[in-house]
Amino acid sequence: MSVRTGESVFDWIDTRAGARAKAGLARRVRPRPADSADLDLASNDYLGLARDKRVTGAAAAASLRWGAGSTGSRLVTGSTELHTELEYELANFCGAQSALVFSSGYAANLGALTALSGPGTAIVADQHIHASLIDGTRLSKADVVVAGHCDVPKVTHALATRGKRRALVVTDSVFSVDGDLAPLAELAAACREHEAALVVDDAHGLGVLGDGGRGAVHAAGLAKAPDVVATLTLSKSLGAQGGAVLGPSRVIRHLVDTARTFIFDTGLAPSSTAAALAALKVLREEPDRPARALDVARDLASRLREAGLRVSAPTAAVVSVQAPSAEAAFDWAEACRARGVVVGCFRPPSVPDGISRLRLTARADLTGADVERAVRVITETGASAGAVSRPRP
Amino acid sequence: MSVRTGESVFDWIDTRAGARAKAGLARRVRPRPADSADLDLASNDYLGLARDKRVTGAAAAASLRWGAGSTGSRLVTGSTELHTELEYELANFCGAQSALVFSSGYAANLGALTALSGPGTAIVADQHIHASLIDGTRLSKADVVVAGHCDVPKVTHALATRGKRRALVVTDSVFSVDGDLAPLAELAAACREHEAALVVDDAHGLGVLGDGGRGAVHAAGLAKAPDVVATLTLSKSLGAQGGAVLGPSRVIRHLVDTARTFIFDTGLAPSSTAAALAALKVLREEPDRPARALDVARDLASRLREAGLRVSAPTAAVVSVQAPSAEAAFDWAEACRARGVVVGCFRPPSVPDGISRLRLTARADLTGADVERAVRVITETGASAGAVSRPRP
Ligand SMILES: Cc1ncc(COP(=O)(O)O)c(C=O)c1O
Ligand SMILES: Cc1ncc(COP(=O)(O)O)c(C=O)c1O
Repeated sequence: MSVRTGESVFDWIDTRAGARAKAGLARRVRPRPADSADLDLASNDYLGLARDKRVTGAAAAASLRWGAGSTGSRLVTGSTELHTELEYELANFCGAQSALVFSSGYAANLGALTALSGPGTAIVADQHIHASLIDGTRLSKADVVVAGHCDVPKVTHALATRGKRRALVVTDSVFSVDGDLAPLAELAAACREHEAALVVDDAHGLGVLGDGGRGAVHAAGLAKAPDVVATLTLSKSLGAQGGAVLGPSRVIRHLVDTARTFIFDTGLAPSSTAAALAALKVLREEPDRPARALDVARDLASRLREAGLRVSAPTAAVVSVQAPSAEAAFDWAEACRARGVVVGCFRPPSVPDGISRLRLTARADLTGADVERAVRVITETGASAGAVSRPRP
Repeated sequence: MSVRTGESVFDWIDTRAGARAKAGLARRVRPRPADSADLDLASNDYLGLARDKRVTGAAAAASLRWGAGSTGSRLVTGSTELHTELEYELANFCGAQSALVFSSGYAANLGALTALSGPGTAIVADQHIHASLIDGTRLSKADVVVAGHCDVPKVTHALATRGKRRALVVTDSVFSVDGDLAPLAELAAACREHEAALVVDDAHGLGVLGDGGRGAVHAAGLAKAPDVVATLTLSKSLGAQGGAVLGPSRVIRHLVDTARTFIFDTGLAPSSTAAALAALKVLREEPDRPARALDVARDLASRLREAGLRVSAPTAAVVSVQAPSAEAAFDWAEACRARGVVVGCFRPPSVPDGISRLRLTARADLTGADVERAVRVITETGASAGAVSRPRP
């Protein structure tokens, strides 16, 4: 028996890391300071509420009053009256019957998909759904069919030919990478016709789309539908952390009884719960904020397109700009950052179609000067990155 | 074509709910107020830090200074200098090479197991591992073998006969329901011998076991082992929210590149990050706190045992008391609560062996009078619940 040191057990990791480095796909954590003069076009803080004093003040007060953590599962000691209040407010604001708060949007998606499916279920999923929904389908034990991207006929066909009695259609409302919108009304009609439930991840719709930011599900008139379930994050337009599932009360009660990421996870911290509540209050008081975020997105997109870049048509607050390659995207994003403009850089495997891009997010609190600065930096650096398809006018 | 309303799509839920209600297994969310005279023996706040002013104050200050949310994935805008500081401190305190913070312990477990396995891997798991580790194995695409409970020969046999080159042995350090301890040193030796990695969920060990609360992995001398990875939660003894993975630096770098619950999840909120940091500082300043939690647990257990209850031998801060049935456990816990003592009630499917029990947690800040009150209430109500196996002396 040889003396083993255990040193070689993770050698395979070095091989993988080498391959990733070679392909220009190594990732890096880049901690940011509390204050910075950089222009942020990368966060999902669409309404600029993460640093709003009403929101941060509520978070701070809740830490002091309720404690730093919720101290247990929501079913043991982790539910506070704050959680109930947030659930009431979320359901009320979005027009749903009931809501359930999870510790993250990721956990909400895992919980919803696993609790609502099982071996007797067919899941029909859009090809571009968020990683957390994909993981939910993987955990679901259901038959999973990927039915193209925003392809209602494919979805309908999959529902009509399914081998299981129950079915769930699963989609993002606003797809996180490109910011394009799912055909929610058509999907809901297909579900209705084929006795399936529709699960919509409204992470990037809440606070941006719909009347006063009530989200894409509300905008599609589906908030109270008996066969539609929405999932949300509290971490984007609400500027906090956490997630939620909204839907018919019996669905919510079912999640309390069966969703593993609800039962076996510590409840959301009081500070984040209170922050989301305060953000909803701001949304009610300032119903025009969501439209401002959309205006900024459209302005940003049209100017970048005029400058010769390949830009998505923004239907929400996300604007994506295609890059010639993964490496070019990386270099481009770095060049922007070097000039004080922080943009997202999405490369494989984070892009569903393999096309690398810059991901820009609009914020309700960006000024005209901010947008101009952003456009200037992104186009000038884009020229060097080979992303400009025709000379600037 | 009939006119469909969608009302029947979730009818199956009512059937399930009816069955659960009949079996006495319906769950209920019970929101608690900010202040209460109840004696809490149900939370995982083992050190009483969730409401410690140093911890809540740090959380509050961080919300104000850094914002209510981290605003994005850790790889985009969600990493702050606070996160880096916490990672440095966690690794340093626990004696590991590196650490990576996740938004929850659940997410840390999913991330670690999926990133470290895959189709070429065999996972050998303890039968009683936490739900989040089970979900991690389900997502892993690995061959999964469940090798009894704390059964080193079975684990060794599974490793020796595996059909895959790579292998992970997966265990809790302190099992969450009964509070019993895994044979970490023996498992590590088996892994070493068979060129496998050991993944230990030290959620209930951190802050309670090991020198100054450095956890069970540290206590077993495995913190720096090149083939051992620990996962932690920040939501129990640290009184906050969040999770972490600790291990060799190359493992941590690999997680940054590949762990889906790291890449596709919003970073932990600044308030929770700061709370965990402040809690670690308290642990350094008051290294005797963990021993007090253990003393309380032992005291509680021995008194309840003397009173004729079937009590686990506490090796950490968890004390479990067996109940005659799921319904009896529920009634018993209710009776305790009616008398102002909040205890956990674990019933199927939350108990790995099907035995329902009360789950009591000791806290470093419980007084002798608290323990006496708890013992009195639990034994008196236990008599009516049929849980006392012999008359009290
Ligand atoms: C569409 C979508 N769903 C879910 C999530 C997960 O939400 P959270 O980050 O709050 O866990 C994200 C982003 O992180 C997302 O973009
Ligand atoms: C052993 C164990 N691991 C992981 C978790 C999940 O951690 P968190 O609640 O921080 O997500 C828990 C409890 O919630 C646990 O008991």
